[in-house]
Formats: sequence, structure tokens, C-alpha cells
Amino acid sequence: MNIQLNGIAASPGIAIAKAYQLVTPDLSFEKVTTENTEEEISRLEQALEVSRTELEKIKEHTENKLGEDHAAIFSAHLLILNDPELINPMKEKIETDKVIAATAVEEVSTMFIDMFENMDNEYMRERAADIKDVTKRVMAHILGVTFPNPALIDEEVVIIAEDLTPSDTAQLNREFVQGFATDIGGRTSHSAIMARSLEIPAVVGTKNITESVSQNDLIIIDGLEGNVIVHPTDEELATYREKQEAYAKQREEWAKLKDEPTITKDGAQVELAANIGTPDDVAGALHNGAEGVGLYRTEFLYMGKSELPSEEEQFEAYKSVLEQMGDKPVVVRTLDIGGDKELDYMDLPKELNPFLGFRAIRFCLENEDVFRPQLRALLRASAFGNLKIMFPMIATLEEFRRAKGILLDEKENLAAEGIKVAENIEVGIMVEIPSTAVTAAQFAKEVDFFSIGTNDLIQYTMAADRMNEQVSYLYQPYHPAILNLVNNVIEAAHKEGKWAGMCGEMAGDPIAIPILLGLGLDEFSMSATSILPARTQLSKLSKEQIASHKEELLAMSTTDEVVEFIDQLVNKA
Amino acid sequence: MNIQLNGIAASPGIAIAKAYQLVTPDLSFEKVTTENTEEEISRLEQALEVSRTELEKIKEHTENKLGEDHAAIFSAHLLILNDPELINPMKEKIETDKVIAATAVEEVSTMFIDMFENMDNEYMRERAADIKDVTKRVMAHILGVTFPNPALIDEEVVIIAEDLTPSDTAQLNREFVQGFATDIGGRTSHSAIMARSLEIPAVVGTKNITESVSQNDLIIIDGLEGNVIVHPTDEELATYREKQEAYAKQREEWAKLKDEPTITKDGAQVELAANIGTPDDVAGALHNGAEGVGLYRTEFLYMGKSELPSEEEQFEAYKSVLEQMGDKPVVVRTLDIGGDKELDYMDLPKELNPFLGFRAIRFCLENEDVFRPQLRALLRASAFGNLKIMFPMIATLEEFRRAKGILLDEKENLAAEGIKVAENIEVGIMVEIPSTAVTAAQFAKEVDFFSIGTNDLIQYTMAADRMNEQVSYLYQPYHPAILNLVNNVIEAAHKEGKWAGMCGEMAGDPIAIPILLGLGLDEFSMSATSILPARTQLSKLSKEQIASHKEELLAMSTTDEVVEFIDQLVNKA
Repeated sequence: MNIQLNGIAASPGIAIAKAYQLVTPDLSFEKVTTENTEEEISRLEQALEVSRTELEKIKEHTENKLGEDHAAIFSAHLLILNDPELINPMKEKIETDKVIAATAVEEVSTMFIDMFENMDNEYMRERAADIKDVTKRVMAHILGVTFPNPALIDEEVVIIAEDLTPSDTAQLNREFVQGFATDIGGRTSHSAIMARSLEIPAVVGTKNITESVSQNDLIIIDGLEGNVIVHPTDEELATYREKQEAYAKQREEWAKLKDEPTITKDGAQVELAANIGTPDDVAGALHNGAEGVGLYRTEFLYMGKSELPSEEEQFEAYKSVLEQMGDKPVVVRTLDIGGDKELDYMDLPKELNPFLGFRAIRFCLENEDVFRPQLRALLRASAFGNLKIMFPMIATLEEFRRAKGILLDEKENLAAEGIKVAENIEVGIMVEIPSTAVTAAQFAKEVDFFSIGTNDLIQYTMAADRMNEQVSYLYQPYHPAILNLVNNVIEAAHKEGKWAGMCGEMAGDPIAIPILLGLGLDEFSMSATSILPARTQLSKLSKEQIASHKEELLAMSTTDEVVEFIDQLVNKA
Repeated sequence: MNIQLNGIAASPGIAIAKAYQLVTPDLSFEKVTTENTEEEISRLEQALEVSRTELEKIKEHTENKLGEDHAAIFSAHLLILNDPELINPMKEKIETDKVIAATAVEEVSTMFIDMFENMDNEYMRERAADIKDVTKRVMAHILGVTFPNPALIDEEVVIIAEDLTPSDTAQLNREFVQGFATDIGGRTSHSAIMARSLEIPAVVGTKNITESVSQNDLIIIDGLEGNVIVHPTDEELATYREKQEAYAKQREEWAKLKDEPTITKDGAQVELAANIGTPDDVAGALHNGAEGVGLYRTEFLYMGKSELPSEEEQFEAYKSVLEQMGDKPVVVRTLDIGGDKELDYMDLPKELNPFLGFRAIRFCLENEDVFRPQLRALLRASAFGNLKIMFPMIATLEEFRRAKGILLDEKENLAAEGIKVAENIEVGIMVEIPSTAVTAAQFAKEVDFFSIGTNDLIQYTMAADRMNEQVSYLYQPYHPAILNLVNNVIEAAHKEGKWAGMCGEMAGDPIAIPILLGLGLDEFSMSATSILPARTQLSKLSKEQIASHKEELLAMSTTDEVVEFIDQLVNKA
């Protein structure tokens, strides 16, 4: 049946491929007994064998793609699958209690999981989690249920999921995954950001795509308009193949600006930079004409693992990004965890309002054992490129002073150790808390640069959780309050001869770009795929024409007024 | 043993009295059987009888103090205690199963509770809660455990509790309760606000007072310094009795200003108003020299009940406040629920970040069936005094326009019904969201007044949950960002000939008062007991002297700088 769904256009382009449902399968079954115990034992052995083969494949694949560190978890899983202390009791249970294999696996694994979980020992509790993961896979094979292995996808597919977590996306093979469609999320959810970073079309927030699609259904994802079509008609297929081609042509046009500077119609120059999450993203950033990295999110180094990354591991990652970028600037944001980003191995407190809680620099200043190795790794890497360091969630000058003090302290330590560190590393801050935007003039005397983080700045300024659908109407990037705060930050920076950038989603938004240009923003950092369209748009805008209406713009009363005003201003130009 | 504890001075004054532990007692027991079933039945009957007598007393007491509505819950409890369908099975259980009374009460009540809780019927689920409450009381009497009845306190005591909820404090008799001391909470927690409103000394956040004190221990609460002494020495008793007397004398001094206007040393006049929660608070406000009510929190009409208050009930409450206040202004804030304030009978969504969620005006605009009756009640009451209406949590002008539109719509409806409504009711907003403070100039053209709600404004501006101890260091009322926003609001108001007030805790804070005076605040609304000290303080300040340093003040970099600057400025004056 032909099904049409609407969602939020999260990453541009058209994908046409088979659906791959990324869901946790239903592993329920009826606990019956059996006389044919031999058959059940052989069923168990077969499931174990298939699981082993799969895990070997995933391990090898992950090693090649992401390195040995990431693959270590699968080695642990393989050890479990080969552990006679776990496997023999399952076989004995089948023989003695005459239960089916599923029952045996469930009861024996539950016994071990309970035992390990209740131990007062971090390491043993992690083993409980591993056993859980592995036995789910074995159970799926016993029950003949498909167990999703996104890492092993080897044909062109479109991923269908309720939502995608960072660890899901880490496993995906860019070669085969053509697009995403999810039930939940908005333009700034992880899935959306990830899709733009992978340069694949995505539609998020469709509400019920997972219910509307079966494995292998043919599907069209229109990431330009936010539409999804399941079982398209021949006519639709033809239309969308044309659209796909037209979009490819447009990309070719954009590509011509790849190595050009970003110059407006009236000759003003700005910098277009990319937001990245891993060293692997640099190639895409450069391919899309980034003049720098405006935001390197270092959280991914810390997430989806069982312990903190070592100083050495971080050094290698930072060095890799800096070397790939050559003399282009790379702004690295120090660890921003907490809020919606948790780390399994750090015991962060459960909070009533995590977005207003103990996160980012607040956490780092109280956990110098986590913070200092990152700063050391950054300082050591600084010798290999054009590094700028940025602290997230700064609310007061004291926090900035303390963070910079620790940085300078580590710089001295490295000097004493005889390790080379770049001179004159710029040290700046994210402006994502209203207090900092309001007192930007005071900060501008001490920081080297500002980078406005609009995702958080908007949610705090409007007091509206951007993930909460009931108040999402208040997430208004063009609201006069946001524009006034942004303007205050830019003016404060320029008065002290500093530069002001923006690394929130707003920086790549075609409606916001003329406004930000008019307010004097120096650096726009965005998803790599937004850079060339932004460069094209900027080449057609006149900075002075918009800037001459700045006072009017800042005095607007509502978001609607702003949008209408800027539309008229730009179109009449 | 003499024990000294430190906490946060939450409400001024010295209390010396016996400790009253307000804690849920331990109702555990061993389930044994018995041959002496007659004794157990008589034990049950006695416990029932004592419980009935207590509940009758509490009911009568509550009726006299708070009115029939509040006492209704105790009538329901008495019906349960007299219900043979509940009581007879308990007696039968003792006879048949030879169990002790405690077992019988527990098992029979659990059966009924489970049955009612699982019914798909709101009313029956409430009955389950009632049975739980009542049987706890009966169990306590069977087990010979003290069951706290704060409503029945009839001797001078100091309440000791982990924390006090609004419903706990609603039951307290102001005549006998001399003070509070709690384990948790800060200056803006409910317990602290309530203590100031009851005008009794309180120390909160002592961490472990409940563990350090036994029932009836003699105790000193020093709400001026934030100290608690358990088992004071004779010397300490003498010292604190002196301190108590000195404080009483200071209060007499303050009382002389009760009917005076609030005039600074250089002849500037401001208004000192009270924050209130119920019509009962008006007497205290007037007694403390309030020139108006700057914030009437209407939530208490909605809380601790089983259904929405009727329009009539609300009308009576608003009318009572207005009549008691005569021609003095009364600013009523429309319903502000959500966030940390929940209503059992409204199915509000569970949110990840409730402080950034669906609350206050956001809720009211989507629930006109709740909002309109409140507006009608307010409009009807307006004929009986000097009413001003204020909307909470306004983030955009559109929200204000919609809320005011609904108000005008109901005004027309009342006119059509021939009901008298005051002309020219001022309609204003709380400024507690950064966006509104930033765009105050735009709002000032349309609202009649601003009232700055600093508790929320500070937590959103600093992006720090004020209830979260790990980030409480960021709750900085004197931070330059807050002062700049407050200044922006006041300037915007004055430019349009409107007035600006403040109804957060900051308005009554002795450090903030000189700053706010210098910035030009027109109205300071605070806990009633802060009014006379504030009037005394203001009479010694020179507005122009502080105002002449406004630019310097607003350019300060940190909270510490502000505090030092204002201290020097005021002391050298």
C-alpha cells in the first residue's frame, strides 16, 4: 500500500532504497517443556555458532572502520560466548529440566546477570551488561527473530528507527546507508545532526514511520521537503529520480564555490566553518568547502565506551583533525557532557532539570582529573595546526578565569616536561547562557573570541526545553530577544577587537543568514553540507544594505515581524 | 547532650521551645499469631476509637481555622473508620486466622487499597488513598507509635522535619508553632517562604537536624544567624533569651513605620508591598505595613484538593483579599502550575526538564476551561477593590496578546450578563524569562506594568536550577547580567510611563535593596515580615547617590565586585 508521511526535513537530498528497520526485536516466548532435549541442545549450539560468526564479522568490520579500541567490546562479547561456565549450565538445564533452549538461555543468563549486577564492583557490573547484550543476540537466533546488525549492512538501505542514538550511528556504514527516517526528533536532534554530517537525506519526527514500514519495503526519503513515501508508484519513482538528479546538479553548482572565499555582493568577507564530531568528519568538511572547523565536539571521544579516553587517545584524535585541516583554524570545544549527554562510566547525578544542571564546564571544573588530560592532549596537539580552545556553558567570568587558569597551568607543566606547545593559542567561550550574552562586554575584555551556541541560548532565553513538544513553539531562533543578545555579543567582541562566531544550527539557516550577516557575525559554523548553499546565498546578499536596517530589526516585536521584514529586505534588494 | 547545628537563616527571630518531630513513623512489626484473640480485637477497637476521636478533633479544628472545604477530607476519613465493610473483616481475620490486630489491619486494608487502586475510576482511586491515610493512623495506635498530628499541637513547640510541604504547613497552628528547623531547603524553599509568611523563626538546610533531635528535646532556633542548639546550657538559654528580647525591641522600632509611606533619605518614594498566598495572609501583610499586595499567588486555591476550584470559590477568595486591602493595590497572578508545582487532579505530562516546560501561561492558554473561570472570578471581584491582573511566564508578546484577548472576551461576556466589573483594571506581566527582560521595550508599549520575578529570572539567565545543589553557586541575584536585565526592564517601563515592580525574594534582600533603588524600581514586593526592615533601610538610603553610579554598577564583571561596590557606596554615604 502506498503510504505518504510528513516529518521535518532534517538533511537535504532524495534517497530511494529498501527500508532497514533498526528496532529491538520482540524476544518473548512460551516456556514449554520438551522430550526432545537433543534437538534443543543442537538449537542452542547453532544459535551460539551463528552469534559467534556475526560478532567476529562485526569486530573485524569495526576494527577496520573505527580502530581497535572501538572493537574491544566485541572481543569481550566473544569471550562470553566461548565461556563454558555460562554455556554448560544452559545445556545441563535443557537435559535435566527438559526445557527448551530459549528457557535455558534466559534462566541461566538471568542468574549470572543478577549475581554480577549485585556485586559491589564496577567491573563485574559491566560484565552483567555484556552478558545481557550477548544473550539477546543468542535468543534472537534461537527464536528465529531478526536481530539488527547495523554495522553489517552491505546493501543500499534507508534506516527506519524510532530515534537514532549516537552509538547507533557510530556503527553505520556510510557507503550503504542512503538515508534516515525516524519517528521522533527535530532539526536539532542527534539523528538530524548526524544525517547532515553524513551528507545523507533524512526526515525526522514522522511520528509513526516505524509502524508504517516493514523490513525491505521500497521507500523514498525527501529530505528537502520532509516527506516519506512507502511503496511509491512508478510515477512517484520517476518524479523523485528526476528530483534526485536536479538536486545533484545543484550540488555541482555549489561545488564550484568549494575553494572560493566567502564574499558578499558588496565585498564583505566572512568565514564559513564546519561543525564536526570526529576526525573522520574532516574529509567531508573540506570536501564541502569549509574554511575551518568552528566546532569540534569532543564528546564522541567519551561516549559509547566503558572508560575515559586516555590523554594519548585524545592527543591522536586532536592531532589528526589539526593535521588534516592544515593551517585552517580548528575550534575545539572542551568536554560538554551532562544534560542530555550521559556517560555510562561516570556516575553523574540524576537531576530534576538536567538542562539547568551539572554539565559541561561546571562538571569539568569540579573534576580536574577528567579536565586536565583533555587540556594536555589539546596543548600537545596544538603544535600540529591552528588550534583554538573553547569552553562550553560559561555563565560567569570566574568560571572562565578558573578554566583558563587550569589550561595555563598545564601549559607550564608541559613546558617543564619539554613538550612543544603552540604559542598564542586563542582561548574563547561558547555563548549559550543568557547571562554571558548579556554581559558580553565584560567577557570581551578577557576572552579571545566568542562562539554563540544558539541551540542552548534559545532554550534558556525562552525558558523552553527544545526537546519538549508542548513548548517547542517557543524555540524561536529569529525572536527579537535572540537577535538582541546575538547583536550584543557581536558588538562587544568588535569593540575589543575580538571575533564572534556562531556554531548553533541557526548559523546555517537560510532565514537567519541575512540577519546574522547584517549584525556583523564574523564566522558561521554549520553542518558541512550547509556550507556551499550558504556561500552561494551570501554571494547574493549585501551586508551594508541589511546592516543599515539593524536598529529597526532589533526593535521588532515578534518572530513573525522579523521574518517578514527580512524577507522584504532581502527580496527587494 | 548539647548539639550545635548550622543551617541557612530562612526567617528571622529566636525561638526557644520543645522539639516536635514531624516525621512519618516506622510502622513495621512482626507478624505473629496469638491465642488471645479477644485482647487483639479489643486492641483494634481501642485504636479505632482513639483514631476517631483524633480525627473529630482535627476536623473541628480545621473547620474553625481553614473552613469547611479544608475539613472535608477528615469527614471522608471518619466515614472509613466507621465503615463495617472494612472493620468487620479485620475482626473476623483476628478470630479466624488468630493473627494480631496489626496483621489484620494491614492485610484487610491492603486488599481494599489494591482493589480500589486498580479500578479505572478516579473517585475509587482517591478512596484508596484515603484508606491508606486512615489505616496508617490506626496502625500507629495499635503499635503504640506516635503519629504526628501537627493540626492538634496545643503547646509551644518548634517543628523539626526533613522538609515541610505546603500541605504540612497548612495544618499548623500559628499560635503554638514557634519555629521550624529542617534538614533540606534554601532561602527560597517552601518551608522558608512559609516561615517568613507565618512570621516565625526558621533555619533550613541543617542537613541532619531530624537525626540530632528527639521528641520534646529543648531547642533554640536562631533564625537571624542560621543556628540551632539542642539541649542548650543555662548560659546559652540566658544569652538567647536576651537576643530574643533585643529582636522584639527592634521589631517595635520597625513597627513605628507601619503606617508611614516609604521615603528615602533624599525624599524619593517607593511602594513596599507583600507577597501573599491566601486571604488569611492579608492581616499579616497589613500588620507589617504593606502598602499593597505585589503578588497574590493563586496556586494555593488549586493545590491540595481533589478538583479544580469553582469560579464562585475563587471569586470569594479574590473578593476577600480586595475588600481587606481597601483601596490599596492588589496584584493577582493568574495560575502558575507546572514546573515544581503539580496538581493531582490535572493530568500534566511528566517532563524531562519541568522548569523549561509546559507551565503557567503556557498551560492556561491551552486549557481555557481552566483559565476562563479564573479570569471571570477576578473580573467579578474587581468591583470590590483595586485589582491588577498579572500573567506569569510570558516569553513572547503573542502570549500576552492572547491572554489579554481572553480576559477582554470574558469582560465582554460579564458585561452582557449585567455583572459589574471595574473600569481600567491594569493588566501586566511577570518578567521572569530572559527573552521578556531583553525585549522589555517592545512589551512596555502594550502592558500596563512589569513585575520582575527574580527566582525564575535568575535560574533561566544563569541556566542553573535553583533547587540543584551542585549548581546552586550560580544562583547569583547580584550578578551583573541580572542587574542589566532588571535595569533594562525598569528603563523600558519608565520610557512608556509604566511602573516596574519586583516580586521575587530579591526585592526584600538588604543587599539588593540599595541596588534596586538606584536602578529606579517603583515597587518592592516581599514577604510581609521583610517590609518594615526594608522601610527602615530605605529611609537611610539616598536614591540619587546610588543612581549616579548606575553605569559603573552595570559594567561590573562579577557578583563579588557588585557586592563590594555597593557595600562601599552605601557605607561611605
